[in-house]
Amino acid sequence: MTPYHDRLAALRAQLRASRLDGFVVPLTDEHMSEYVGSYARRLEWLTGFQGSAGTAAVLPDKAAIFTDGRYTLQVRQQVDGADWQFVAVPGTSVADWLRANAGQGARIGYDPWLHTRAWVDEARCALTAQGVDLVAVDANPVDAVWSDRPSPSDAALAVQDDAVAGKSSAAKRAEVADRLAEQGADAVVLSALDSIAWTFNVRGRDVAHTPVALSYALVNADGTADLFVAPEKMTDAVAQHLGNAVRVHDRRAFAPALGQFAGKRVAVDPDRAVAAVFDALDDGGATVLALRDPTVLPRAQKNAAEVAGHKAAQARDGAVMVRFLKWIEAEAPRGGLTEIAASDHLQRLREEAGAVDLSFDTISATGAHGASPHYKADAESNAPILPGQLYLIDSGGQWPNGTTDITRVVPVGEPSAEMRDRFTRVLKGHIAIACAVFPDGTTGGQLDSFARRPLWEAGLDFAHGTGHGVGAYLSVHEGPQRIAKPNYPGGGPSEPLRPGMFLSNEPGYYKAGEYGIRIENLILVVERDIPGGDAPMMAFETLTFAPIERALIEPALLDVTERAWLNAYHAQVLDVLGPGLDADHRAWLLAKCAPI
Amino acid sequence: MTPYHDRLAALRAQLRASRLDGFVVPLTDEHMSEYVGSYARRLEWLTGFQGSAGTAAVLPDKAAIFTDGRYTLQVRQQVDGADWQFVAVPGTSVADWLRANAGQGARIGYDPWLHTRAWVDEARCALTAQGVDLVAVDANPVDAVWSDRPSPSDAALAVQDDAVAGKSSAAKRAEVADRLAEQGADAVVLSALDSIAWTFNVRGRDVAHTPVALSYALVNADGTADLFVAPEKMTDAVAQHLGNAVRVHDRRAFAPALGQFAGKRVAVDPDRAVAAVFDALDDGGATVLALRDPTVLPRAQKNAAEVAGHKAAQARDGAVMVRFLKWIEAEAPRGGLTEIAASDHLQRLREEAGAVDLSFDTISATGAHGASPHYKADAESNAPILPGQLYLIDSGGQWPNGTTDITRVVPVGEPSAEMRDRFTRVLKGHIAIACAVFPDGTTGGQLDSFARRPLWEAGLDFAHGTGHGVGAYLSVHEGPQRIAKPNYPGGGPSEPLRPGMFLSNEPGYYKAGEYGIRIENLILVVERDIPGGDAPMMAFETLTFAPIERALIEPALLDVTERAWLNAYHAQVLDVLGPGLDADHRAWLLAKCAPI
Repeated sequence: MTPYHDRLAALRAQLRASRLDGFVVPLTDEHMSEYVGSYARRLEWLTGFQGSAGTAAVLPDKAAIFTDGRYTLQVRQQVDGADWQFVAVPGTSVADWLRANAGQGARIGYDPWLHTRAWVDEARCALTAQGVDLVAVDANPVDAVWSDRPSPSDAALAVQDDAVAGKSSAAKRAEVADRLAEQGADAVVLSALDSIAWTFNVRGRDVAHTPVALSYALVNADGTADLFVAPEKMTDAVAQHLGNAVRVHDRRAFAPALGQFAGKRVAVDPDRAVAAVFDALDDGGATVLALRDPTVLPRAQKNAAEVAGHKAAQARDGAVMVRFLKWIEAEAPRGGLTEIAASDHLQRLREEAGAVDLSFDTISATGAHGASPHYKADAESNAPILPGQLYLIDSGGQWPNGTTDITRVVPVGEPSAEMRDRFTRVLKGHIAIACAVFPDGTTGGQLDSFARRPLWEAGLDFAHGTGHGVGAYLSVHEGPQRIAKPNYPGGGPSEPLRPGMFLSNEPGYYKAGEYGIRIENLILVVERDIPGGDAPMMAFETLTFAPIERALIEPALLDVTERAWLNAYHAQVLDVLGPGLDADHRAWLLAKCAPI
Repeated sequence: MTPYHDRLAALRAQLRASRLDGFVVPLTDEHMSEYVGSYARRLEWLTGFQGSAGTAAVLPDKAAIFTDGRYTLQVRQQVDGADWQFVAVPGTSVADWLRANAGQGARIGYDPWLHTRAWVDEARCALTAQGVDLVAVDANPVDAVWSDRPSPSDAALAVQDDAVAGKSSAAKRAEVADRLAEQGADAVVLSALDSIAWTFNVRGRDVAHTPVALSYALVNADGTADLFVAPEKMTDAVAQHLGNAVRVHDRRAFAPALGQFAGKRVAVDPDRAVAAVFDALDDGGATVLALRDPTVLPRAQKNAAEVAGHKAAQARDGAVMVRFLKWIEAEAPRGGLTEIAASDHLQRLREEAGAVDLSFDTISATGAHGASPHYKADAESNAPILPGQLYLIDSGGQWPNGTTDITRVVPVGEPSAEMRDRFTRVLKGHIAIACAVFPDGTTGGQLDSFARRPLWEAGLDFAHGTGHGVGAYLSVHEGPQRIAKPNYPGGGPSEPLRPGMFLSNEPGYYKAGEYGIRIENLILVVERDIPGGDAPMMAFETLTFAPIERALIEPALLDVTERAWLNAYHAQVLDVLGPGLDADHRAWLLAKCAPI
């Protein structure tokens, strides 16, 4: 018997006591984080859903969980259909469902610290027309009934050395201050955790796989700042690092501090700050400027030290991958190896090599599991890796100087001709992105089709983006840039690519019930001057080094340029990784990297 | 002495008499047409500007003309800088300039029949903040001072046979009525001239190069309609064709008719109908539904008869092009031939072959003139076609069964290696579009980069879209689809491509001061089932047949697929055009189409 039925009943009782007819439970935290600390995993606690995007809505007699196409299968496996309706977004929004299912005059609660203002405005507009009231709660009713709710992490902050960060916090704050002056703002609210970590050159351990600390910050037009963080997280080293220009406050002092800006102009990013931040500023008499977080672009455009650190991290990560790939090639055909045993082994190799953490939950997927791009093995699903299958491993490390993310696929035994055809088409798409040359102002949305063309020509496609931004020892998914179809949510495909940006390059192909293929390297946007050209162009430099399985490549499908890229890439893999390997691994890698 | 200085003075006097401090003169007509009849060319009459996009604003002591990047050069050649400031949009909008230059309390007039409601709302919002009033005029003050203003054309309507249209007007109106029922609308206003021509299967001669008639229409939810057109345009044949379900009214009865919808729901396309239409419906008590013109998609997706008619038109147009290309190849090297003489010759050939009209002003551009993508030769610019130059000819015909648009480039004498390199890269981009295969839902914005990739790789690009939609014996530029960079104005690049759509495929390359290259064929979106694929795909079928100049192609730059496409295309050119040519022309074409 799962606990979820009782939890739903307890929440309903709590709502009745609070005179609410319903409540909305999103997945995010009060920082609009993609990955959230255990204390904030209200959706998972309430429903059992473990995906990374979803929302629940609870009414007295009905409840629904809203997920997108990626989680259609997973939500039905993890959540009890007897208690929860499964609703597909964006077809039906939470507001649509509430409008159809909540009665006239119903009061539906929401926690203003867990939704953007745009969400609140839109939902309120849709519901008011139907006589349904959307009501901000002072305290989250889920927390009231979650008796064993974990406390927020009290892990200490750590200093990110200026040498690794490539720029001091004072210099970063001075740039933010310049931007505020241009915009006529007196201060900016930073509530995205990676914005704060980047601005102050600090890192934390409060969120799984993302080295950030629960905090808020205000940066003022004079370059001074206020950092709001639990006192137990501070150390002498951090205090000394922050210096006098950064006033440190308890995290609980943040909301009251927003009331102190009467008559001032305060910038807030509507995509990265919750409704409660806007409400508190409005209530305090501030003029709110809805502007993009000024740290987004400087954070996305990595400096020379960040690029150098990332490359060093990639060399260590690549050596780990070589050990893993050689190991699995030997182990898998013997039988008995499971998905979780494989990912545990890879995690051990990364830890031994000095990684601080994984950069996300490893996707270790064999056979048909690989066809779910976001598969996560658990005790129930954990499958043996069997001959005839393709095994897909998508993983990454948080190294002290860089965040990695790599996907490789290996065949167990002999792959079929179809598998080789599909793998080679994915590879051709991957190479097309790796080799892309494009003018200033080009967006990821303009390059995405290059990755799909070899699949389209065979009547195939893949149903996810081609690439996401990546942080520098920060979030493995970092905006604003993205390579994806133009209608990808969030606007990433319309963001111009700029020198210094990190992206993933990860086209794939998925055959439901049979196998999944994805080839993922990280890439760096660089300037490229082309002799005889009319204008300076941009291009990508590949940052990830690990062999791409030759047994899955059909050479006849590669053209001259693609073959040249592959052979040059493998030569570089040998150059970068060979010297650090023992003789056995070096010999193995030499064979894997031989020209095709 | 040009007349424009006096015209501006006369307009200013008229504004003073009307108690206006300024007036805005756009280029369009009351149907939001791209090309407008001579009676409506107020901007050209006032300023001398002959480009196809621009606006003027007149104040008592200042006047400005607003054009985009395409017309930077042309506006300075055609408009007197002593009277007019040259302002670049979108950098500075008309409202921006008025806000900066009109005094507090100024009353700025606009003609509500010549602007969209969105333009009025936006401009009013920007100006009100500055204390400037935007005032709708009852009569256009330009018309009051334009003493020899041409009357609107009184050309008769002509019936477009159902067999050519592929669907009767009654059937089209029934489909529109179904759509209105779905949307809960009682009627729809059609004010775009091509929408009306398409809906009623009629054609006109009121606008240069576009076979439409000045008219308005209302289609009702019962499939009946009201057509508003000058009585002198009606003929017995047209009346009989329209039948009893279409009530015909004087065009001047349109505005009053909009006042008769009290309590009704009326659909209007905010991109295709002017502000005055909305105002009149609002004033009459109608509920206005701002919805896309319901004829846009059915018009864009050509039916089998329209495709067949278009192909027949292309065969005739291709034969004309063969005659022209053979002629210019012989004539140009002799010297003495000018741009206008060449385009006159081409026009004669089309007329002799049965074309009703050109589909746009021919671009006949030699040498450096070719580097202006929208160049139009006039008496002053008319240049001799000289050895060493590239000669670019972009032209099209209005045939009774189809609208064509083709661009070819021919070298006079020996082309340079650079010209051959650039031409071949443009050809590679052209072939990439011609060969594109893509899934359902794909937009033109997702394909545009295919056309640019071979140029990008050499540090080059071109500053216009790759392809526009084309009508069926209608506008040569017809929406909604477009192949272009995603930020191209008007949303065309976000429109999914659908089977039956016509587009141009016209990548180019322009070297300022030296030459221009463009290779343009029309293409048709078709369904393509790929054996072994996961889903049905779409692709293009090329519709235009004329040789692509082999002397400009560097075969070493073509890959196997590209070479195969070129040879297959030329074989098809021979198949389609060869049988209709005399022996001389057939021999010439045979040589031009020999495999490379």
